[in-house]
Amino acid sequence: MYPDSIKNLIESFKLLPGIGSKTAERLAFSVLDLDDEQAEFFSNSINDVKSTIHKCSVCNNLTDNDLCYICMNHDRDEHMLCVVEDSKSVFLFEKLGIFRGKYHVLDGLISPLEGINPEDIGIDKLLSRIEKEHFDEVIFAFKPSIEGETTSLYIKRVLDGLNIKVSRLASGIPIGADIEFIDSLTLERALNDRKSVE
Amino acid sequence: MYPDSIKNLIESFKLLPGIGSKTAERLAFSVLDLDDEQAEFFSNSINDVKSTIHKCSVCNNLTDNDLCYICMNHDRDEHMLCVVEDSKSVFLFEKLGIFRGKYHVLDGLISPLEGINPEDIGIDKLLSRIEKEHFDEVIFAFKPSIEGETTSLYIKRVLDGLNIKVSRLASGIPIGADIEFIDSLTLERALNDRKSVE
Repeated sequence: MYPDSIKNLIESFKLLPGIGSKTAERLAFSVLDLDDEQAEFFSNSINDVKSTIHKCSVCNNLTDNDLCYICMNHDRDEHMLCVVEDSKSVFLFEKLGIFRGKYHVLDGLISPLEGINPEDIGIDKLLSRIEKEHFDEVIFAFKPSIEGETTSLYIKRVLDGLNIKVSRLASGIPIGADIEFIDSLTLERALNDRKSVE
Repeated sequence: MYPDSIKNLIESFKLLPGIGSKTAERLAFSVLDLDDEQAEFFSNSINDVKSTIHKCSVCNNLTDNDLCYICMNHDRDEHMLCVVEDSKSVFLFEKLGIFRGKYHVLDGLISPLEGINPEDIGIDKLLSRIEKEHFDEVIFAFKPSIEGETTSLYIKRVLDGLNIKVSRLASGIPIGADIEFIDSLTLERALNDRKSVE
């Protein structure tokens, strides 16, 4: 019913997670409303990310150089390593400007249920980096989930005996949230992780 | 902070209406997760719609030919014309298969508030088509709104004296809806448009 090229564009949008048929149709029609220059910019951008972006050879973060801009920056605290599950987390932390150390990006999290094992997420590379560089502390910044927990525990066990402090992000009640609406797991974690008031 | 090509891709997604920064970032990262072939398909699809799709020379519907597939189809009822505000409406009607006549696609609706006048939405082309072809009935299938109303009334007035039946889609309570939650305008329209039970 649609001309082929519109059909293809709808199918293209549907390749992206979270985009269903209706949204894909809407987006395809809005591409038709772009002017020629904008559409060319869009299509070039897709080609460019695929051809220029790859993983940093040290930390696995996405970059268009051999080393990402964080690994190239020697003003950062080289004794703190924040381990994250994807590059998006690095960009998020950096946008907020709340961490001044180095990062290491895993290829996701360990998930026995989905058949994702330690060797699938690049833990080897992380370990050989930790053995080579001199970190005082390794911080796990994974999403609070069974997979995050499993990955943290696994890495912690492997690092045992290396005399490195290992920590994770605090879980608890988000600032501004109403206790009434917090799920029981979060509440339990907030209780266990309670801090003394000083 | 992002490498340039990721930044550009985020900006590209933000060109599409309804896509804000967060969604654009999410979509850009999911393009990175596509394999090379899929990304190429995506970028080619954008180029293709822009280079192959244009308006049907008769009805203004989007097509990759001179005439759209509906204008080329002589099995359709050539005495009924359904006037719509955009091509999306044609595809919607066709998907549902509920209309067997011809279509005419306007470039939107008249909106004095936004400075959109009859000459801006291609009413001239519609009128000269109506004068040339032999329609018994013209049906307005615009969204129920002030703009839809204004456009219907304007075209109806211009067609006065041509001895063509002019109608619009019925407004009223959607099937399955609860009367309690229907807005007052719709309810008023449903009351005015009441049908005798036979």
